[in-house]
Amino acid sequence: MSEALVVFTPSGKRGRFPVGTRLLEAARKLGVDIDSVCGGRALCGRCQITVGQGSFAKHGIDSSAEHVGPFTATEERYRSRKGLIEGRRLSCQTILEGDVVIDVPPESQVHKQVVRKRAEVREIALDPSTTLHFVEVQEPDMHDPRGDFERLLEALREQWQLEGLTADLHVLQRLQKTLRKGEWKVTAAVHDRKRLVEIWPGFTDRAYGLAVDIGSTTIAAHLCDLSTGEVVASSGLMNPQIRFGEDLMSRVSYVMMNPGGEVEMTQAVREALAAVTGEVAAEAKIERDLIMEAVFVGNPVMHHLLLGIDPTELGGAPFALALDSAMNLRASDLDLDGAMNRGASIYVLPCIAGHVGADAAGVVLSETPYLRDDVSLVVDVGTNAEIVLGDRNKLLACSSPTGPAFEGAQISGGQRAAPGAIERVRIDRETLEPRFKVIGSDLWSNESGFAEATGRTGVTGICGSGIIEVLAEMFLAGIISRDGVIDGGMATRTARIEADGRTFSYVLQEGEPRIRITQTDVRAIQLAKAALYAGSKLLMEHFGVEKVDRVTLAGAFGSHIDTTYAMVLGLIPDCDLAKVQAAGNAAGTGARIALLNKQARREIERVVKRIEKIETAIEPRFQQHFVEAMAFPHKTAEYVHLTRAVALPAPKELAHDEGDGRRRRRRA
Amino acid sequence: MSEALVVFTPSGKRGRFPVGTRLLEAARKLGVDIDSVCGGRALCGRCQITVGQGSFAKHGIDSSAEHVGPFTATEERYRSRKGLIEGRRLSCQTILEGDVVIDVPPESQVHKQVVRKRAEVREIALDPSTTLHFVEVQEPDMHDPRGDFERLLEALREQWQLEGLTADLHVLQRLQKTLRKGEWKVTAAVHDRKRLVEIWPGFTDRAYGLAVDIGSTTIAAHLCDLSTGEVVASSGLMNPQIRFGEDLMSRVSYVMMNPGGEVEMTQAVREALAAVTGEVAAEAKIERDLIMEAVFVGNPVMHHLLLGIDPTELGGAPFALALDSAMNLRASDLDLDGAMNRGASIYVLPCIAGHVGADAAGVVLSETPYLRDDVSLVVDVGTNAEIVLGDRNKLLACSSPTGPAFEGAQISGGQRAAPGAIERVRIDRETLEPRFKVIGSDLWSNESGFAEATGRTGVTGICGSGIIEVLAEMFLAGIISRDGVIDGGMATRTARIEADGRTFSYVLQEGEPRIRITQTDVRAIQLAKAALYAGSKLLMEHFGVEKVDRVTLAGAFGSHIDTTYAMVLGLIPDCDLAKVQAAGNAAGTGARIALLNKQARREIERVVKRIEKIETAIEPRFQQHFVEAMAFPHKTAEYVHLTRAVALPAPKELAHDEGDGRRRRRRA
Repeated sequence: MSEALVVFTPSGKRGRFPVGTRLLEAARKLGVDIDSVCGGRALCGRCQITVGQGSFAKHGIDSSAEHVGPFTATEERYRSRKGLIEGRRLSCQTILEGDVVIDVPPESQVHKQVVRKRAEVREIALDPSTTLHFVEVQEPDMHDPRGDFERLLEALREQWQLEGLTADLHVLQRLQKTLRKGEWKVTAAVHDRKRLVEIWPGFTDRAYGLAVDIGSTTIAAHLCDLSTGEVVASSGLMNPQIRFGEDLMSRVSYVMMNPGGEVEMTQAVREALAAVTGEVAAEAKIERDLIMEAVFVGNPVMHHLLLGIDPTELGGAPFALALDSAMNLRASDLDLDGAMNRGASIYVLPCIAGHVGADAAGVVLSETPYLRDDVSLVVDVGTNAEIVLGDRNKLLACSSPTGPAFEGAQISGGQRAAPGAIERVRIDRETLEPRFKVIGSDLWSNESGFAEATGRTGVTGICGSGIIEVLAEMFLAGIISRDGVIDGGMATRTARIEADGRTFSYVLQEGEPRIRITQTDVRAIQLAKAALYAGSKLLMEHFGVEKVDRVTLAGAFGSHIDTTYAMVLGLIPDCDLAKVQAAGNAAGTGARIALLNKQARREIERVVKRIEKIETAIEPRFQQHFVEAMAFPHKTAEYVHLTRAVALPAPKELAHDEGDGRRRRRRA
Repeated sequence: MSEALVVFTPSGKRGRFPVGTRLLEAARKLGVDIDSVCGGRALCGRCQITVGQGSFAKHGIDSSAEHVGPFTATEERYRSRKGLIEGRRLSCQTILEGDVVIDVPPESQVHKQVVRKRAEVREIALDPSTTLHFVEVQEPDMHDPRGDFERLLEALREQWQLEGLTADLHVLQRLQKTLRKGEWKVTAAVHDRKRLVEIWPGFTDRAYGLAVDIGSTTIAAHLCDLSTGEVVASSGLMNPQIRFGEDLMSRVSYVMMNPGGEVEMTQAVREALAAVTGEVAAEAKIERDLIMEAVFVGNPVMHHLLLGIDPTELGGAPFALALDSAMNLRASDLDLDGAMNRGASIYVLPCIAGHVGADAAGVVLSETPYLRDDVSLVVDVGTNAEIVLGDRNKLLACSSPTGPAFEGAQISGGQRAAPGAIERVRIDRETLEPRFKVIGSDLWSNESGFAEATGRTGVTGICGSGIIEVLAEMFLAGIISRDGVIDGGMATRTARIEADGRTFSYVLQEGEPRIRITQTDVRAIQLAKAALYAGSKLLMEHFGVEKVDRVTLAGAFGSHIDTTYAMVLGLIPDCDLAKVQAAGNAAGTGARIALLNKQARREIERVVKRIEKIETAIEPRFQQHFVEAMAFPHKTAEYVHLTRAVALPAPKELAHDEGDGRRRRRRA
């Protein structure tokens, strides 16, 4: 039997095979990364290749002929049914006839890259935990007493090299009917190459996964196609636990005051997860049964309540987590077997410490400070700020009790980010007159058509990013002093400064509602930003750096604030402004990475183990940094530069994370 | 540091250790088999030893002194609390002070033998899947952000060498409260050294397991103490599926006629299992929560219905099992998490073929034909007979459709074995007058006091063993011919022979109820015994033997029939009568072995894989053997010997399996 040389590009893998070998088989034997769900039956079209043209002298092939078999009738059928780009072949149908160079296009690779929009983060290689495998199973006969399951296992072993699989009972319960309905051709879903979790009659190549960030306030879910990595639907809804308390500690208190209260809250969050799953499935027009994976992140209290664990211990020193390891569960463990496929696997990212949760682990996985040479500071602001600092050699983490002021809570005119909330503010340095923009409108308040643009909602209050901007603008306009006092003397220049007992307020909007910035509001933001800054400073001190190379602001708050203003107010340490960026819902992105790439799970588990945790509550230096950080920053050279930068151009559009547009759109 | 030699008996393992070493530690390091649940804290008392006295010259120890530390206050406390045999020490408290010989008594060995009553079967070494481990866990503090679970894992790793454990979610949900309640001392139950399935505050050393044989008619359960292997309670109840059909095929038909009927039957059998579990727990006066393991066996239809699998495919050729592999499940998979500990593990033995189930696998595990040099025939008679033949080199199995006649069904006066049923019959060779015994009474019907002894029940019918005996006696008395015809000519000798249309009957009891043996009854038993015999013969032919060395009759029927009569009627092939024995509920015993010894699970899985299955339905020779076996045996020399043996002595008492007394007592 004569042999021929085949060279696969871009891998460069090469080998000699008997003439007549199918190219998919040759690729498999060489370990070339070519996708296939149907196992070489011309059904899935995943294994497409291009046969090289021209001279291949550099590959040691002395021929320009196309040394493969002709386009087959099977390929023609596939082309007419599903379409095939000119020049493409199905490698499972293409026969080796002589020396040849074969190009494997990116979309035919098993571990194809999922494109992320932000340049500074790495691509995700597609390698999900649950994989699909089409097989033909031997029919039973009287001479072979083996069970149908054992014959299915044999097919998976012989056709897909899957060894020693176990099966979920629900699969075995439907196995015989499914095999017969599919006429002994079925598609199996296998988790982690170990566990048979679903079986469908005939061929199918659709499977989906869900990545969810369970925040104290909102639950954000992305539904991803596990074969492309694309987000096919996103949705967010309020965390229904809010009725038990606005912030984390009030929910922990609820459990302390109402023994068994954790059961109610667990039920509430799981029902919300079921609801949001239904929502994204409906939006993507898929059956919930096709959702085979889910990955969850959340802060430690959300993490514990999701798992049905009483979070009481997180409410007081020593803030002991019930567990910090990553969890591999089944949908039924979380009562989610009705919301997705019964065989769906759940992965929960590890927690880092009692106040630094699986959400922070998600942020770390998304932003990968552990892969960088430069020193990154990654800050995820919620009711607690979770802060990670480090580089490829060392990582530190802490949490800092910022309180809910950044989210608009405990601010006189404050509200959550939602249509109608003021999010951008400018104050004229001379007249001290303000103008602002609200969420849901592109117009400034002094532009014509503003009232119409805000529509029925009107202006309802001010959200976190608006508060940051108004305070920074008040400071830059001289209305607030460095130590945070609203200057009553300015009342002579504008009627917007008004007395408020023994302190003063700035009136941002007259009318309904009347929105003022009070001295109490300024103090609340000062406390929050001092806590945030002190946490960062503490980590820098432990790490041994005076300055960080890069600052990443994660989370909704980080996405909506203008980073320039954040630095004006001193929320974050000094850093080259070009290296300060918003990462959007990085926790959610981390969940999505863990969903699409099972190696990423092992990676974050390893990284989390080596993160050094700093407990702010027992660090005397934290208090000192906190007190020092109450004032607004000194007029250093950089600060002057900043004020100038702010005064001149219109506010830049903020970079959003991939999923952010959808999330924002649906925030209402 | 000086060292001393320690020799452990009976293992003979020896080694030198520093003076001051605790003997339990020395034993561990040498791999000496000493039990411990508390991990050396003088709580469990499992690690008792005896310090050798006298001269140990043969061990190379030139001293007769007792070279160990003195009896400690801790041991004294243990003795006063729980008792300690004179001369015994706790090895965890005994200090090595010089060369010494230490005896480990059998009850201190981890893998102690569980004594079985029958001499011909091997002992069971105690080695259950779920083990208990007492640990002290490090308390959390602010400098150690690890979760409580991770600190528990560390304790299990350091104190018990348990690596890489995962945990059931329900354990994690209660972990923090349990650790605090136990003041950081807890007992963990670990399944297969892999999965943490339960945790109790403080020290406990009690855990139980359940072995259940799910028969078509009865469910027999044994509750075992996992630390001693003892059966602490047994119970049997009717399989409630009987309301869907008396025999297997009628239940399969029920599903065929009532789609979804398998769901009802699954629910019925699982509810019965929960009920029987409650019954044995109550009898043993233990909490259900202490039941950590269950093992189930059953024929293929029962096996499938237990697992929630539609048995329809078992109702017709090619009789395809949904699966034949052994199953490792959790209690919740079978809705049994309320009936036992939530973390309890379930093991279901493998099936052999479409008509040879996990019950047959249990029989094989109990009777171990695969360990013998001689050729054994093992027969488990139910509605189908499951037959295994072979030796250490080769095993064959088949099932044979005996029908329910042996169980008293489809016999005119027949009934299930229960008080009031005739089980022993003798017919006077001259007068042709019968006498009989009923279940629940020790008197013959012609003895005085018989009527009183049968009590309120009276004589209700005739069960399987009674039918065998009456037919054999009728044959021996000449009432039935070799080809099974009741001889009407005998009516001249006794009024008990009466015409019945064109055939004749023998009246066993006048009165209420009138019990007759009709020609149809004889035919039914002939068909059943021919099927049984033909199955055995077919296997012998495939194996290549003319004669078997040993016959074991398993199951209730096998326990109750007199093996001599079984051979008179030709139910089983010729064999030395001394080598024909009843094994009682061997399927249940197999379940108990798999419960107490996890290696036995691997063993039966391996053995089942190499059993060669013979499908009687497609073997033309089976029909031939069947036809030939319809008649009663020839008067060979052996047969004459048999008839003589039967005619003379009173029926011998039958050997029963260990659990059988209880089962029989409760059969009512």
